[in-house]
Amino acid sequence: MPVNAQRTSARRVDARGAIDLLKELRTLTADENGAQRLAWSPAWLKAREWFRTKLRALPVEHHYDAAGNSWTTLKGASEKALLLGSHLDSVPNGGWLDGALGVMAAFAVLRRVAEEYNGKPPVTVRLVDWADEEGARFGRSLFGSSAFAGTQTIEADRGRTDANGKRLEDALAECGVRIDEIGDAGKERKNAAAYLELHIEQGPVLESMDLPLGAVLGTKGVERHLITFHGQEAHSGSTPMNARRDALAAAARLALEIRTIAKKHPDAVCTMGSLKTFPGIATAVVGRCEATLDQRDLDAEVLAAMYREAQEKSREFAAEENCTVEWSRIWNIAPEPFHPRLIEFCEEAIRETVGRAHRLPSGPLHDAAEVSRAGIPTTMMFVQSLKGISHNRIEDTREEHLEQAIVAYDLLAQKTMEWIQAF
Amino acid sequence: MPVNAQRTSARRVDARGAIDLLKELRTLTADENGAQRLAWSPAWLKAREWFRTKLRALPVEHHYDAAGNSWTTLKGASEKALLLGSHLDSVPNGGWLDGALGVMAAFAVLRRVAEEYNGKPPVTVRLVDWADEEGARFGRSLFGSSAFAGTQTIEADRGRTDANGKRLEDALAECGVRIDEIGDAGKERKNAAAYLELHIEQGPVLESMDLPLGAVLGTKGVERHLITFHGQEAHSGSTPMNARRDALAAAARLALEIRTIAKKHPDAVCTMGSLKTFPGIATAVVGRCEATLDQRDLDAEVLAAMYREAQEKSREFAAEENCTVEWSRIWNIAPEPFHPRLIEFCEEAIRETVGRAHRLPSGPLHDAAEVSRAGIPTTMMFVQSLKGISHNRIEDTREEHLEQAIVAYDLLAQKTMEWIQAF
Repeated sequence: MPVNAQRTSARRVDARGAIDLLKELRTLTADENGAQRLAWSPAWLKAREWFRTKLRALPVEHHYDAAGNSWTTLKGASEKALLLGSHLDSVPNGGWLDGALGVMAAFAVLRRVAEEYNGKPPVTVRLVDWADEEGARFGRSLFGSSAFAGTQTIEADRGRTDANGKRLEDALAECGVRIDEIGDAGKERKNAAAYLELHIEQGPVLESMDLPLGAVLGTKGVERHLITFHGQEAHSGSTPMNARRDALAAAARLALEIRTIAKKHPDAVCTMGSLKTFPGIATAVVGRCEATLDQRDLDAEVLAAMYREAQEKSREFAAEENCTVEWSRIWNIAPEPFHPRLIEFCEEAIRETVGRAHRLPSGPLHDAAEVSRAGIPTTMMFVQSLKGISHNRIEDTREEHLEQAIVAYDLLAQKTMEWIQAF
Repeated sequence: MPVNAQRTSARRVDARGAIDLLKELRTLTADENGAQRLAWSPAWLKAREWFRTKLRALPVEHHYDAAGNSWTTLKGASEKALLLGSHLDSVPNGGWLDGALGVMAAFAVLRRVAEEYNGKPPVTVRLVDWADEEGARFGRSLFGSSAFAGTQTIEADRGRTDANGKRLEDALAECGVRIDEIGDAGKERKNAAAYLELHIEQGPVLESMDLPLGAVLGTKGVERHLITFHGQEAHSGSTPMNARRDALAAAARLALEIRTIAKKHPDAVCTMGSLKTFPGIATAVVGRCEATLDQRDLDAEVLAAMYREAQEKSREFAAEENCTVEWSRIWNIAPEPFHPRLIEFCEEAIRETVGRAHRLPSGPLHDAAEVSRAGIPTTMMFVQSLKGISHNRIEDTREEHLEQAIVAYDLLAQKTMEWIQAF
């Protein structure tokens, strides 16, 4: 089908140009193992510097905020601002699209809008490249967007170190960011009227439905726990089966039960991603077993119910296996449903671009969740990921789908600008 | 009941004296973490030197064989020899009884026989302290007894190193043992007519039956395998439950299934002692799962059937979970049933000493299995282990039970001497 047949704006967004920029960035910052734009690293700074050179021809203002977020502002007739963005940082050995696609798409939209309105659109349009979305080095994801949203956790993060023992605080300082001042990034919320982010799905749903694009309903809440079963270490040869207190058996039952729990709810997921056995040798019944449980859903009540059920079942299995169990929360976050009107715009933009749309929640977290948490109407658009793979150098999306994504995202931006204008 | 009421020999074995020796040895070679008689270490050599001083008053010949086994011979009227023994080496942080009890009990019997027959018993009696039963340092258990039995594996063991990179070959040389010559220990098999070993049970069976002693039917065969399930690593947030290829789920099903498999056979055990997840992080569906399986039974056909069934089930689970599975044998050993007549003697000696006896297979391996494999009639006697715990400083047995064990073992030795004599 013809791309963008019902396009409402006069200029075409330069989707091919955005893809070319993505390839240029890959050449600049990837090696044979994938993208290496780890936040606060020289390669990341190089990527950001490269990006600034691309702004030269545009009538925009650029600055970094107190948390290291990069803001590019095209002033409009109204101060009310449409925010477009994503992140340039990557995990080590990452893919070429995760984050970077959203920044390049936002850049293409910004350029289209600047050209279409001769540098003065009806509302202000701002492009943001969030600092350290991945948290791959210091374990603190959504760093910049949480500072923007006012949900930053300076005291908890102050002591973070990377694998080499380098402190987050010092790495920030080398990039001109003072940890005690990152809350000042909240000033950027002023006049923010909506936030839109294009991202690869990082999952297999759209591919399995043979759809290029989806409108994102929100980010799922997460309950993440460490569950420890205590049994009794015993000799594998001399301990009869009925005399065992096998901590692995209790954990194995829970590993299977969480699937039953998840499948009661259409979009819920439960994952046991790590399981460790102690002493962990072939000749001993497992005396202690540590497992992680990660549960996600877009509905807070469903999430709470799944958490409760997993706890109950774990206690039941522990008792039946003559073991005990303890739970310790690793992390949790509430679900963040996106803005209903923007989700509708997103679905319309997708349908107008490729004919068919689908609504889906996001399992992975995104900066968009922090922006939404700050009360700014938000949504995201997902483009199909081949095989659902990301955080890996083989992460990929068909170029035809990338083009459709950028066109639909531009259309979404246009609809949202008109919505902001009409407030 | 009175101990040893029907005793056929005139002298009493000095059970208390043997227990005193065990305590003396503990004082000499244990620290606050337990016994430290690691084979080929200074503490082990010290224990053996100490033991030699105890032989001085006896009319015996002593030498070390080519594999480092320690032989103490009381020559009898016949060259046909009753072998009595166990091992002085321990695991690091081991218990005071594992191995040492058998050596001290054998010593008490040797002394009783020497006294009773004025230094010239009807058959030869030999005490053996096997070298490196535990294999705790170089991972090669039953080192000395396998050299004796002719089942040694010199070429495979030559390259073994300890945790510090020291070669087995060099550690042996420091103790006067040349690895290429250990097969000469086979000469000690000459005239060997029977072998008897007293050992702690290292399991909970006798304690659960409230019995001090048991006659050992043989050592269970072992099938030990590494099982690897291959699924697909995937994001825990973005991968729907029905799109997962979860390697942990397949392994968890097998962890539970092996219990069903084992429980079909009265004495069989199946253990999954180690399970590892890859990448093993909370946010990823497990792409690969490695698990060990240790299966044991005294009946070779039962063992083969359990191994076959576990393989079949693993393939079934892998297929159902959209995974694949591969098996790799870590180690296996055939069951070694002990000598029926000696088992009867053992049961009689126990019944005559404490009134009630029980026959049980040994899950752990023992030097006795190697001796039996060499075609020498063999059995073992087990004494109750408190809580079934061994290889730990809290390993213990009630002193009353130790005394009964030494008395019954002496009675078994007497019965066996008479049996050898009657050949």
